[in-house]
Amino acid sequence: MRKVIIDTDTAGDDTIALLTALHYFKVEGVTITGGNVDFDQEVENALYTIQVANPREPVPVYKGFEVPLLANGTGRHQTVEDVHGSDGMGDSFFEKAKQRPEEGHAVDFIIEKVKANPGEIHLLAIAPLTNIAMAIKKDPSIVKDIPHIYIMGGTNNSLGNITAAAEYNFWVDPEAARIVLHSGVPITLVGWDMCTKFSIMDDGDHEDIERLASKGSEFFIQINKVVKQFNKKVHRLNGTTHPDTLLVAIAANEDVMTKATKYYVDVETKGELTRGYSLVDMNNRSGKEPNVIVCEEVNRDMFKDQLLDVLKSF
Amino acid sequence: MRKVIIDTDTAGDDTIALLTALHYFKVEGVTITGGNVDFDQEVENALYTIQVANPREPVPVYKGFEVPLLANGTGRHQTVEDVHGSDGMGDSFFEKAKQRPEEGHAVDFIIEKVKANPGEIHLLAIAPLTNIAMAIKKDPSIVKDIPHIYIMGGTNNSLGNITAAAEYNFWVDPEAARIVLHSGVPITLVGWDMCTKFSIMDDGDHEDIERLASKGSEFFIQINKVVKQFNKKVHRLNGTTHPDTLLVAIAANEDVMTKATKYYVDVETKGELTRGYSLVDMNNRSGKEPNVIVCEEVNRDMFKDQLLDVLKSF
Amino acid sequence: MRKVIIDTDTAGDDTIALLTALHYFKVEGVTITGGNVDFDQEVENALYTIQVANPREPVPVYKGFEVPLLANGTGRHQTVEDVHGSDGMGDSFFEKAKQRPEEGHAVDFIIEKVKANPGEIHLLAIAPLTNIAMAIKKDPSIVKDIPHIYIMGGTNNSLGNITAAAEYNFWVDPEAARIVLHSGVPITLVGWDMCTKFSIMDDGDHEDIERLASKGSEFFIQINKVVKQFNKKVHRLNGTTHPDTLLVAIAANEDVMTKATKYYVDVETKGELTRGYSLVDMNNRSGKEPNVIVCEEVNRDMFKDQLLDVLKSF
Amino acid sequence: MRKVIIDTDTAGDDTIALLTALHYFKVEGVTITGGNVDFDQEVENALYTIQVANPREPVPVYKGFEVPLLANGTGRHQTVEDVHGSDGMGDSFFEKAKQRPEEGHAVDFIIEKVKANPGEIHLLAIAPLTNIAMAIKKDPSIVKDIPHIYIMGGTNNSLGNITAAAEYNFWVDPEAARIVLHSGVPITLVGWDMCTKFSIMDDGDHEDIERLASKGSEFFIQINKVVKQFNKKVHRLNGTTHPDTLLVAIAANEDVMTKATKYYVDVETKGELTRGYSLVDMNNRSGKEPNVIVCEEVNRDMFKDQLLDVLKSF
Repeated sequence: MRKVIIDTDTAGDDTIALLTALHYFKVEGVTITGGNVDFDQEVENALYTIQVANPREPVPVYKGFEVPLLANGTGRHQTVEDVHGSDGMGDSFFEKAKQRPEEGHAVDFIIEKVKANPGEIHLLAIAPLTNIAMAIKKDPSIVKDIPHIYIMGGTNNSLGNITAAAEYNFWVDPEAARIVLHSGVPITLVGWDMCTKFSIMDDGDHEDIERLASKGSEFFIQINKVVKQFNKKVHRLNGTTHPDTLLVAIAANEDVMTKATKYYVDVETKGELTRGYSLVDMNNRSGKEPNVIVCEEVNRDMFKDQLLDVLKSF
Repeated sequence: MRKVIIDTDTAGDDTIALLTALHYFKVEGVTITGGNVDFDQEVENALYTIQVANPREPVPVYKGFEVPLLANGTGRHQTVEDVHGSDGMGDSFFEKAKQRPEEGHAVDFIIEKVKANPGEIHLLAIAPLTNIAMAIKKDPSIVKDIPHIYIMGGTNNSLGNITAAAEYNFWVDPEAARIVLHSGVPITLVGWDMCTKFSIMDDGDHEDIERLASKGSEFFIQINKVVKQFNKKVHRLNGTTHPDTLLVAIAANEDVMTKATKYYVDVETKGELTRGYSLVDMNNRSGKEPNVIVCEEVNRDMFKDQLLDVLKSF
Repeated sequence: MRKVIIDTDTAGDDTIALLTALHYFKVEGVTITGGNVDFDQEVENALYTIQVANPREPVPVYKGFEVPLLANGTGRHQTVEDVHGSDGMGDSFFEKAKQRPEEGHAVDFIIEKVKANPGEIHLLAIAPLTNIAMAIKKDPSIVKDIPHIYIMGGTNNSLGNITAAAEYNFWVDPEAARIVLHSGVPITLVGWDMCTKFSIMDDGDHEDIERLASKGSEFFIQINKVVKQFNKKVHRLNGTTHPDTLLVAIAANEDVMTKATKYYVDVETKGELTRGYSLVDMNNRSGKEPNVIVCEEVNRDMFKDQLLDVLKSF
Repeated sequence: MRKVIIDTDTAGDDTIALLTALHYFKVEGVTITGGNVDFDQEVENALYTIQVANPREPVPVYKGFEVPLLANGTGRHQTVEDVHGSDGMGDSFFEKAKQRPEEGHAVDFIIEKVKANPGEIHLLAIAPLTNIAMAIKKDPSIVKDIPHIYIMGGTNNSLGNITAAAEYNFWVDPEAARIVLHSGVPITLVGWDMCTKFSIMDDGDHEDIERLASKGSEFFIQINKVVKQFNKKVHRLNGTTHPDTLLVAIAANEDVMTKATKYYVDVETKGELTRGYSLVDMNNRSGKEPNVIVCEEVNRDMFKDQLLDVLKSF
């Protein structure tokens, strides 16, 4: 089993992605970044999800940066409780998990774990990239020791979700995204466009999942209550989107990606309307060296099968 | 017949668009903006195209701004002779037309013509929007007297053509585009994405056109030599694109547009990677009042029929 | 007598500058730009000031751009009635002048006058540079025919007046300022720092002026009522500042400038805090060719003498 | 003796500032940030200077961020060997000090030291603010435990040194400067303008220093060889500037500052010409709450006396 650290702003689909990671990988640790909802709630959500998964070996949870790189100490970015429910868990208001977060900072955990296992720790990034960027900045020598970062973020020349131009993870901390994309670590990017095209679980899929009648499937149904309504209203989507789960599924099995091309990818940090816009230079008009493998097509059936396997297994 | 002024950086498809305008509208004048190729060459291309069309009544040609709003007097924007041939006419090097451009500035011509015919002069904009923006800035009172501007420009959350993020017309003069989009004049926008999806004339279509054996069809084949090769190489397209002709065809017959929605549209002027990016806020994440009718689908067969009708008629 | 066109957003000190121009130059025309106060009020203020001066030959007044280059048609920049009184004339609410503004646009007047008198028309610019920039953009061939532009604007590495970083004229239309500064026309720049250091008329000076008991001196006292109070309050200055008058005095007699150096000067258009900031590269850290003669010291006594001469003469 | 941590990009005047700190304060540690010269050279310069001072108790040196916040891992900012000599020590090429830098990161040292001594550790910042900003970002809870940060950086509405608009420390890492200025920690700022006005040691002063004939004075003379020539050439200054030493002297004895006012201070991060510009809003045109005590006048004699006392003492 490959080793991973999963960096998450745990709310909604992050939890199913975390279950997926716990199914397919040896999860060395979970690091939390400020993003979707209240930071402390995100920490609790990660701990609760681990409790649901009930892994044989303990999976430590580390707190990282609560706010983006350039936000003031007291500054806040826009959270999205409207999408995920006020607790980020579909207003489930679960009991507090018994496991508590570790002492020590997420960034130091990432650096130490990577240095102790050179070439072995894959990073699964399903949140704003603040923690991973700061780990790379704090100790640039880890770059050569990270074999791959799988990133859910950006959108390939398509409509964004938080603004018309930008996807949420890149928009929250575009400077961090830029640092990671240009770090030299091999990267696979799964954008919001892949999620709207291939990750949607519609009413029929939800029924299939419900029929599994496992602890995992019950958790899935519970978690996705609020976001299902939100998607109908805002994104005109019937069903739920699973960007983070898709990312982890692809990391676990690259065959899920039926088309992927290496392009030059960058992030706009200065625009007036385009902060967080992901430039995917498909025709290489910039003339720059491609730096990111961009997912362009997904075997949707294979993804659904994986998801059901995961939910059945808990 | 409705009255129009067509503003063009005449090269390549601009010429076919101009023929289309001369077929369907009473063209009150042609105004030239700096764009595709050398400015004086653009002027000659417009004059030559009018000579090919040989209209019953004379169609005056006015020179406008040679460079974008914020370019220095001596500054140059990037022209695209690689796309359209060094003369912008597929390296045809036609003889000089007999008709000469008028005295007077394009901007003053637009203002005077609109004021003399309030509510009657539609604008067909198939170039950077410098002239039209400056007309509106010089005399804002014309806003209420222009019934509609049809603009070929931008791209609806899709890949650009001059950069990954931007379409050429908006990229050359994003400040001008912004002035026009926010002017209050009713606007229909046909973006680069419509052109790549619906305007392509492939090898079979070129054969159909050649078979017309009219002066117009010969002109079409001649003009499109260079761009055909360019598209194969750069845009991986088999065939030629007709963004400007599609725009005029839609202005002539809105039924060619099978789907169009009013969205909030704006243009990025300050980004580091996204200068000229057209924000089309399809999910209205900005909460701003829709200001532009955006073409989203085209009846491709109807468009081709129109094009053949036009080429046959000359 | 040298020929000039004076471009002004007539309010407060613009009027005294206009009197100074009428005293020392053959004023071919007055052009009005949007700036200090309501545009139509500015036009009236210019007409009234000419009536006060009662020149032998008529001095035509032309309306120009009401709003800055990149403001929307309906957009407004910040006017400064708090500085100059609600009428821009120290709340004097003068009667309307008999003379009316000319037909035709300020920009066309500038172009035609310069082309009819190549090498002879000096421009005195004491307002945002919208009109002059647009004249140069509309007909770049006038650049070689304008012998000199004297500009009141910017501030030489000193505190601004409308923001900490920027002086009002450059701040209102930084894009226009940039176009003019890079146009290639020889330029002398008199910044806000010169005005605060050398142009202040304190209580004693006001008494000297009042003692002249001329129509001009009465006008001066009347006009400066409101701004005197404003300066005490906001700029902690005892007395009134005369940036525009100093500019015209220097244009009339360069000996008033006791130190002036040619530096590279540019204007920030994109900053978040620094829009309109004038970069005066005194140590040439940019390595760019100096383009502007920057006034660095003024013979304050000579300036005061000139001012009194002017006010006495009307 | 008050406790301090001094954060420095040790080259040139940083060394004299470090001596000054060792004279007046209990220096808990020295942290190094990328700035003036090669990072490893800066570390050596700090270690060598401590060896010159030969303090009774050991003074640990910690390595911090080698490059600014938003520079890529491999990215480099502009260093200034032309100012300080290729070794940052006036081309002295001193032998390597015996003391070696500590394990552990500067940022963690700052956080731990502050948390272990709440309210006691003053920060002396004479380099780009990368380390201090990142300490505050990594553990925002230290903000309430830092009694004061003394910062050499920016320039109060005056000419910059690295660009016309910006002072070096703020220019290298404007984002870090912004984070620190808005952190809520009480700050005193000594800008480049204070240094050019009050910190210059001219030929006579250098003779006075040489006459001390102490190890400290010899070191001073040696270090300042190259910068003396640089200042004559580039800044037209006779003598050497001591921005960092002035900062530490003021921290040691605030009476050296004869005028200081609390203003709203911010840093431009987005300008095209003004990156790193320090906005000092003396007339409070922004209406924002003052956040920084800005030094506006210095008792130059007192400063010189302090400097000589320091140099004599080693």
